[in-house]
Amino acid sequence: MNTFEEITQLISTEIEKIDWNKRPHGLYEPIGYVLGMGGKRIRPVLTLMACNLFSDNIQQAVSPAIGLEIFHNFTLLHDDIMDKADVRRGQPTVHKKWDDNTAILSGDVMQIASYQFIAQSPANQLKRTLDLFSKTASEICEGQQYDVEFEHRDNVNDNEYLEMIRLKTAVLLGAALKIGSWIGGAGDKDAQLLYDFGIYIGLAFQLKDDLLDVYGDEVTFGKRIGGDILCNKKTYLLIRAIENAKGQDAQELQKWLTNSDEELSFEKIKSVTSLFSNLGVREICEDKMQFFYTKAVAKLEKVSVSENKKKELRKLAEKLMFRME
Amino acid sequence: MNTFEEITQLISTEIEKIDWNKRPHGLYEPIGYVLGMGGKRIRPVLTLMACNLFSDNIQQAVSPAIGLEIFHNFTLLHDDIMDKADVRRGQPTVHKKWDDNTAILSGDVMQIASYQFIAQSPANQLKRTLDLFSKTASEICEGQQYDVEFEHRDNVNDNEYLEMIRLKTAVLLGAALKIGSWIGGAGDKDAQLLYDFGIYIGLAFQLKDDLLDVYGDEVTFGKRIGGDILCNKKTYLLIRAIENAKGQDAQELQKWLTNSDEELSFEKIKSVTSLFSNLGVREICEDKMQFFYTKAVAKLEKVSVSENKKKELRKLAEKLMFRME
Repeated sequence: MNTFEEITQLISTEIEKIDWNKRPHGLYEPIGYVLGMGGKRIRPVLTLMACNLFSDNIQQAVSPAIGLEIFHNFTLLHDDIMDKADVRRGQPTVHKKWDDNTAILSGDVMQIASYQFIAQSPANQLKRTLDLFSKTASEICEGQQYDVEFEHRDNVNDNEYLEMIRLKTAVLLGAALKIGSWIGGAGDKDAQLLYDFGIYIGLAFQLKDDLLDVYGDEVTFGKRIGGDILCNKKTYLLIRAIENAKGQDAQELQKWLTNSDEELSFEKIKSVTSLFSNLGVREICEDKMQFFYTKAVAKLEKVSVSENKKKELRKLAEKLMFRME
Repeated sequence: MNTFEEITQLISTEIEKIDWNKRPHGLYEPIGYVLGMGGKRIRPVLTLMACNLFSDNIQQAVSPAIGLEIFHNFTLLHDDIMDKADVRRGQPTVHKKWDDNTAILSGDVMQIASYQFIAQSPANQLKRTLDLFSKTASEICEGQQYDVEFEHRDNVNDNEYLEMIRLKTAVLLGAALKIGSWIGGAGDKDAQLLYDFGIYIGLAFQLKDDLLDVYGDEVTFGKRIGGDILCNKKTYLLIRAIENAKGQDAQELQKWLTNSDEELSFEKIKSVTSLFSNLGVREICEDKMQFFYTKAVAKLEKVSVSENKKKELRKLAEKLMFRME
């Protein structure tokens, strides 16, 4: 059994080893840049941990794990073009540091690279790993499409939102766990339990993200607090606030949603945040997050390996829920 | 043995059968639109023909053949964003009909779809088909990157140009043939001969395209004649013209290359075209095309199946060389 720290170290080292110093440099350099930005490497870590539940040979899951991390970073790269985001993890995004065309094309070749790593799965697991990966990758694009469409709609309800984040965020965590468990030798039932564990962790994780954007600490969160409020992003908090606000609260919320005066940014963040508190949506969101977290843990319970082996996965789940960044 | 016409019909029918009426429509509709624009379906036809050289069961190669066609159309979709091209096959391009973000994201999911079709290759051919496909896909991105970089360079030589079109155009024809032959049961030697046949046909095909853009007939070519000249596209003709022009010719060519006055468009096309003729680069390009075509035919000669079976592939190669569009 490997600890969370050992696995994170292993995967970081393996990712650093990949040689992107290939021609044409203009195509491959941005890939090294994006992967070098760091990040928590949650997806490949989940793959190796899930494999480790059933096998001591986690090395055989390293390539597909890296494939998932490359794919995840590819989606960030293309999402940043679509969102016109200039900064990611404190550094300029690819389309900002280079240009849109570079970001499109480097992203495309990154997606191919992710398949090249997935293709190095053990031969007897290749077909189903590949199929689940493609299905998951399509779902992530579907989630991104819904996310974009929601920006232009006023009547998004909370179930639609949860389905969107299931697609955009949760399915990749589920797939990471399922693929790792298959490679480790898990049976169908355990593999599915781990997939479901990943889905619920993913949903809780995204709700935590929505909360941190409003109630987090600027320094540890690493992003500007209130960014979602400023751009009227349809987060779980805002959707529930629109649903729950009546009378004067509803009027005030609408007033701020139609206000994009930059000089009133501070005022807007402060007022919408206190509306959230008055309307009780912070608690609603925290409860929902807790609900998914509990469901996740229950799924993990049922996986047919010893309690001791599940320790590291449970620790990681806690880490993600109680994180400040 | 199936004729070229039968195979084209089969693949068109199969492509039309694919259901893109999936949610979210905003993501999948553009894929149906792009694939519905038509085109010659050369790549999947090559796959089925190569398979047919060695087997009567071409049905088993249909899915990977479709995967190659979807991938090809995906590259057109993303290239059109990068080139800011508004029209393709007489219809508005996706980023024009929808917007850039839609074109990026639909392209991404198209690339995944191409892998989903490749993944339906016969199990015993999956790994090497997948690996060749990924290698080829990366090479196509590399070719596109070189193409973009060449636009900002004045000193591109003909070998660099040929390497660029090998990557951007020829390798996919080679891979289409190799994959089809593998699935049909070809040995390594025949598969490689067919790959090389595809490379040479691809190089000749692109030179033909360069020629058609200058000397083609507007109506049958379906594009505006002289488009490459107007935007100073570094085609084989222009590269050889820059290389060969001396004295007054060189001065006149440079004058037109730095002239982007739209009112002089007609004049520019006429003058550069006659410079090409004076400098003999039309013949140089035609000779080079013929050179590759001859090499291609010689590779096909050596494939160890009866002459009669090669008839359809030879016919297709001729069609591509002597086409007017």
